Amino acid sequence: MTLPKIPRDPADDYSAAAIAARREYAEEQTGARLEHVSSYSLGPGTLPGNIENFVGVAQVPIGLAGPLLVDGEHARGEFVVPMATTEGTLVASYSRGMKLCRAAGGITTTVLDDRMQRAPVFSFASAREARDFKVWLDGRFDEIAAAAQTTTSTGRLLDIQTFAASKHLYTRFNYSTGDAAGQNLTGKATFAACAWIKQHYPGELHFLLEGQFATDKKTSVVNMLHTRGKRVVAEITLPAALVEEQMHVSTDKLYAARMKGQLGSIMSVTNNNGNHSANGITAVFIATGQDVANVAESSALYGFSELLPNGDLYASVTLPSLIVATYGGGTGLATQRECLELLGCYGSGGVLKLAEIIAATVLAGELSLGSAVVAEEWVQAHDDLGRNRP
Amino acid sequence: MTLPKIPRDPADDYSAAAIAARREYAEEQTGARLEHVSSYSLGPGTLPGNIENFVGVAQVPIGLAGPLLVDGEHARGEFVVPMATTEGTLVASYSRGMKLCRAAGGITTTVLDDRMQRAPVFSFASAREARDFKVWLDGRFDEIAAAAQTTTSTGRLLDIQTFAASKHLYTRFNYSTGDAAGQNLTGKATFAACAWIKQHYPGELHFLLEGQFATDKKTSVVNMLHTRGKRVVAEITLPAALVEEQMHVSTDKLYAARMKGQLGSIMSVTNNNGNHSANGITAVFIATGQDVANVAESSALYGFSELLPNGDLYASVTLPSLIVATYGGGTGLATQRECLELLGCYGSGGVLKLAEIIAATVLAGELSLGSAVVAEEWVQAHDDLGRNRP
Amino acid sequence: MTLPKIPRDPADDYSAAAIAARREYAEEQTGARLEHVSSYSLGPGTLPGNIENFVGVAQVPIGLAGPLLVDGEHARGEFVVPMATTEGTLVASYSRGMKLCRAAGGITTTVLDDRMQRAPVFSFASAREARDFKVWLDGRFDEIAAAAQTTTSTGRLLDIQTFAASKHLYTRFNYSTGDAAGQNLTGKATFAACAWIKQHYPGELHFLLEGQFATDKKTSVVNMLHTRGKRVVAEITLPAALVEEQMHVSTDKLYAARMKGQLGSIMSVTNNNGNHSANGITAVFIATGQDVANVAESSALYGFSELLPNGDLYASVTLPSLIVATYGGGTGLATQRECLELLGCYGSGGVLKLAEIIAATVLAGELSLGSAVVAEEWVQAHDDLGRNRP
Amino acid sequence: MTLPKIPRDPADDYSAAAIAARREYAEEQTGARLEHVSSYSLGPGTLPGNIENFVGVAQVPIGLAGPLLVDGEHARGEFVVPMATTEGTLVASYSRGMKLCRAAGGITTTVLDDRMQRAPVFSFASAREARDFKVWLDGRFDEIAAAAQTTTSTGRLLDIQTFAASKHLYTRFNYSTGDAAGQNLTGKATFAACAWIKQHYPGELHFLLEGQFATDKKTSVVNMLHTRGKRVVAEITLPAALVEEQMHVSTDKLYAARMKGQLGSIMSVTNNNGNHSANGITAVFIATGQDVANVAESSALYGFSELLPNGDLYASVTLPSLIVATYGGGTGLATQRECLELLGCYGSGGVLKLAEIIAATVLAGELSLGSAVVAEEWVQAHDDLGRNRP
Repeated sequence: MTLPKIPRDPADDYSAAAIAARREYAEEQTGARLEHVSSYSLGPGTLPGNIENFVGVAQVPIGLAGPLLVDGEHARGEFVVPMATTEGTLVASYSRGMKLCRAAGGITTTVLDDRMQRAPVFSFASAREARDFKVWLDGRFDEIAAAAQTTTSTGRLLDIQTFAASKHLYTRFNYSTGDAAGQNLTGKATFAACAWIKQHYPGELHFLLEGQFATDKKTSVVNMLHTRGKRVVAEITLPAALVEEQMHVSTDKLYAARMKGQLGSIMSVTNNNGNHSANGITAVFIATGQDVANVAESSALYGFSELLPNGDLYASVTLPSLIVATYGGGTGLATQRECLELLGCYGSGGVLKLAEIIAATVLAGELSLGSAVVAEEWVQAHDDLGRNRP
Repeated sequence: MTLPKIPRDPADDYSAAAIAARREYAEEQTGARLEHVSSYSLGPGTLPGNIENFVGVAQVPIGLAGPLLVDGEHARGEFVVPMATTEGTLVASYSRGMKLCRAAGGITTTVLDDRMQRAPVFSFASAREARDFKVWLDGRFDEIAAAAQTTTSTGRLLDIQTFAASKHLYTRFNYSTGDAAGQNLTGKATFAACAWIKQHYPGELHFLLEGQFATDKKTSVVNMLHTRGKRVVAEITLPAALVEEQMHVSTDKLYAARMKGQLGSIMSVTNNNGNHSANGITAVFIATGQDVANVAESSALYGFSELLPNGDLYASVTLPSLIVATYGGGTGLATQRECLELLGCYGSGGVLKLAEIIAATVLAGELSLGSAVVAEEWVQAHDDLGRNRP
Repeated sequence: MTLPKIPRDPADDYSAAAIAARREYAEEQTGARLEHVSSYSLGPGTLPGNIENFVGVAQVPIGLAGPLLVDGEHARGEFVVPMATTEGTLVASYSRGMKLCRAAGGITTTVLDDRMQRAPVFSFASAREARDFKVWLDGRFDEIAAAAQTTTSTGRLLDIQTFAASKHLYTRFNYSTGDAAGQNLTGKATFAACAWIKQHYPGELHFLLEGQFATDKKTSVVNMLHTRGKRVVAEITLPAALVEEQMHVSTDKLYAARMKGQLGSIMSVTNNNGNHSANGITAVFIATGQDVANVAESSALYGFSELLPNGDLYASVTLPSLIVATYGGGTGLATQRECLELLGCYGSGGVLKLAEIIAATVLAGELSLGSAVVAEEWVQAHDDLGRNRP
Repeated sequence: MTLPKIPRDPADDYSAAAIAARREYAEEQTGARLEHVSSYSLGPGTLPGNIENFVGVAQVPIGLAGPLLVDGEHARGEFVVPMATTEGTLVASYSRGMKLCRAAGGITTTVLDDRMQRAPVFSFASAREARDFKVWLDGRFDEIAAAAQTTTSTGRLLDIQTFAASKHLYTRFNYSTGDAAGQNLTGKATFAACAWIKQHYPGELHFLLEGQFATDKKTSVVNMLHTRGKRVVAEITLPAALVEEQMHVSTDKLYAARMKGQLGSIMSVTNNNGNHSANGITAVFIATGQDVANVAESSALYGFSELLPNGDLYASVTLPSLIVATYGGGTGLATQRECLELLGCYGSGGVLKLAEIIAATVLAGELSLGSAVVAEEWVQAHDDLGRNRP
């Protein structure tokens, strides 16, 4: 079989006719029907910049979790969290955790850092030249920042980190990017910076715009140590009696289980000594128009808990590389925008609020699943709500 | 502000009335409108088991990439790949890679392994007791497998791996799970196995159903070494002239860039020495009803390339923990099923075919982005197609 | 300056004349004097097989730590541990920890596993061929083991692990090696096995004797998960009052500090969530003629502690890749043998005893340093005993 | 058996009588003889500050490797390298690599960075307080540096890095430390800095002097990324014909083997994508009085090679955390000082020279072993020189 090319219409590729031509192509070539895929309410005007070869939509079910009580610096009060998922039990489990945390007085959230990067590598004939370049680079920050910022009105170059090996100097150009996630902004700005560097550096150099030190769409220790997107903490202290009553476990058993799990995660070498942050993050990401592939990085997590002398449990999650936006990307699409509005986060000024809501959601989900495993209710819950899907 | 509870109707929670009640609740409490979220064609009958507190859908745009030419053992021929994303440039970039690979004769794919796990940890009073338990466990495999398999008709316990530290024995119960992803199946079966073990072991033991050695929804070295889901390879040899013509780079520059990037990924310590597997995997996952949170694990990648003496480039990707299903979960939902049918993968017997198609898609995307970075076309492409969204 | 070659005497390279010729060469070429280097009591007869271009010895001071009370399966009773080091405070600190543990009733030790490996990688034209080879390999274990064991009287091939990626099959040939460390034994045996495989496999293959899955002289997750050398645990429960009295800290502060340190080690990504295992291991290794470069792997450590409800502290260390020998290598050299005899470990049957003594030593040292940091006595101790060497 | 305490004489613990008393104790309690351990030429005056409970020495054989031709900024010319080891073949193998590199024109070495650290963690009641402390800390660098430097004449605080998670702020206090390794200097200075901080910070805080972000005696990603001790590169370009002639392998086979090994090391997750740096480093460390336990960190290695179009091979090693000293510690002991003098590195101003010599030694050893494995000469060499010790 040799398939013809997928129909495109350079002049008007998002017109109803162009879309229909692709649907017909797909149906004819494969025998499948795209009836539901073709059923959508989003306007074609929002598609350019978000998708090519558009043919329709995936309809992903949204459930509401909450209310979630947050005591943040940007998110304050109660929220109803839209979660788009096909995994039964997920919304119910997060809601259960949110109920517990609300009864305990709510979750405190704090944004620790905020930076997005592009990471060019500069290569030379020898290690000595690479080292000398670093000295030159460190002394030209202002000019380089100026060159980078000619390409952007919202991005600002914060600093340039360097990591040397062999005859290469790996760098991280760190930016603040406002309410945008900023991957494209930083790419464009850093390309301009590299062009300036290449023009002005008195020696020979070769650069590659990405040397795998920003690890876009890939989790890494560098991003966990040095932040990619938002670095945000959610923390709570849970009274022992409340945990016992709502989750049917004692806090000491919960803590002991967590410590065993933590040794497991050290041995298995994860990027996450928690339970399932990816579940909550993915569901909110799909609902709110985030770049969902960033789940690979955003789900990284440092958990830290303490069993207090009185039996209460301090629990926290730190998300060191949470990439979110309330402007640009998929945030303006029809359903995605509505979900952001549901959280009061759409558009300018909403991004730190969204980061805090997501961190609080993650913490609620950690406590819910962690408790269920210890209480041996986990399998039963999936039987009831997930219909124990295989 | 204190929000009332989200409306639920235990008797009929997926009825139009129950759904409407939640929508009204959300709109009243937040002031947002859920007009588009409420616009969907999927039937409520498919929702139980996939979502709780349902209120509507996220409409995620789908573009078609391809044709993708695959020479697999399960996927053979050409495919049009549905990708659900809001990231401009993504579908175009994958299509570009697919065109290159098609011109080179197609991508060869091979499934190396297939196993899903649950990983209980067994704890004792001392290391010596934990070690003795391992001996006992190794001698009871048949009875344990029988106990596990009382709970499932499709799952089969393949083996039990053990990893000891302190007074704990961490295990991995590895199963084959047919066309289902199998996380719930393995949870239920392993719980039954643990109950049997607890009943029959002559000594004292305590078990926790998950000791973080299956690292569900979290990437880990254990899963990359020992497979979670499908372990699948996609490989191709690209003629130097073809790469030069279509990608505007020489294969030696492409290879040199990859080597610099690989050192970068070793230093930054990623789970992925490639470029952006998460992009392609996420887009196909959303379109085809996979559990998208598994992107955290599924996007792990081992890349390996060789520059041949004649200048041609051998390129391969190995996905060691790709979790996919063509049965159960979200695969039966309206648009998701259509997209699986577009690939000829829906239902029984389709899962290895889907794994091969995804691996081939990932390889095409690696080559496209890798070339664009070297050719310095990357920023420009995002300007054109992504409208250089920030 | 162009130096002449170092004098060698193929006929009699360990004779007094040959040794003197090298010393004179070194002194003449560099102007240095090797007076103390030339002062030694070890007999030249033991040197062949241990050193080339011999010129003299390093005199490394040995201090005695202990008594160390061990309740092992191989080491039982009290031991005086010879530690060769130049780091002031080290012997005193280990002795302090040993005193604490003795007062608490001694340290329980358990050997969990024992295996040494060589790790050839087999390469093919495609992933499919690599996968097919694995099936063939799995079905030929007995013949392969027989081929391997033609080269050794003490080594026994236990199993062959496989790890596939791209068109390569990485393996680990695991052996028991008696009282020898076994790196050379396994190299020779595996080379013979590979030759047999190459001769008998019906397809094309290329092998490389080491594919970096045994990671000789390099720490790795694979070795920590799957054991290299001995996997051994040392554990103890310390009464709260005893810790307070001897270490001037409360167990809850000690535990809290350990938990903070553990999060630190997760973030900094170490192979060791303890304090300084390398100190004790290196000192005993130098004293007892171990291959000291193995400290790179042998110092890997999983620590696990529990604060019990009554305030007592359970503490354990698991050394997953401790490489030791009581036969072969440097164990027969003059001072090294004496130190092994001091521990009752020299020669046949001593190796598991030595492993247990080292694990217990490590645990004692962890507790001593951990306590000193919390009690803020650490800097002072180094001022007193280390003369606060810079 | 209950052993009496090891004899100590607080008044004169390094006198001949005190040493003899310990030897007699050890011999009586264990039945072993310490004849050779008691045979040494080092003077007791050098022992205080280096060892406690001294009883004698380990005599570790030293062989000479070289000549090693180095084109460094600190080490220039040819060197004869003293290596203390009991591993047969080691000295011969390093010498073989040095011969190759000398014939190729010598090894170029470059020190990229130089810093030693202590890493206190500061803890608070909440994440927000930890974040606010960071702001305060960043604004007090000069006062903190002044407080730290009251304790040292040679150390200088360069900067303070911070890494936040949960309610903790982990830090790295980075110092330059002259010719000393600096672990004690940095401990004492940082303790003084922390005392100053505790006194002056207006809020509540608790500090622990080590939060496992300096990972003393433990390898870590943080230390590899951000340098501990010296960050030093050794590099060379080897003519294809020379490699073929001396090592009996073609450069393309050598390169191909390295690439397979590198994938292996990525999969097995090592701190070292080379072959056996620990061997050379350990042997020079023992000979020259370094703190040998630092091999755990110092042996970490980033390797990078290129096969040039003309078939020549560029090879480099970067040692990112090489901890060396030419002053303090064991460097002043009798044989250790002689070995440092042999290299022209003893005392003030020698430390960067020593770092360069060690890096060059490591590169020579990498090339020698790498070639032997490919040429299948490895096992044979151990049979000949190592007497194939098990």
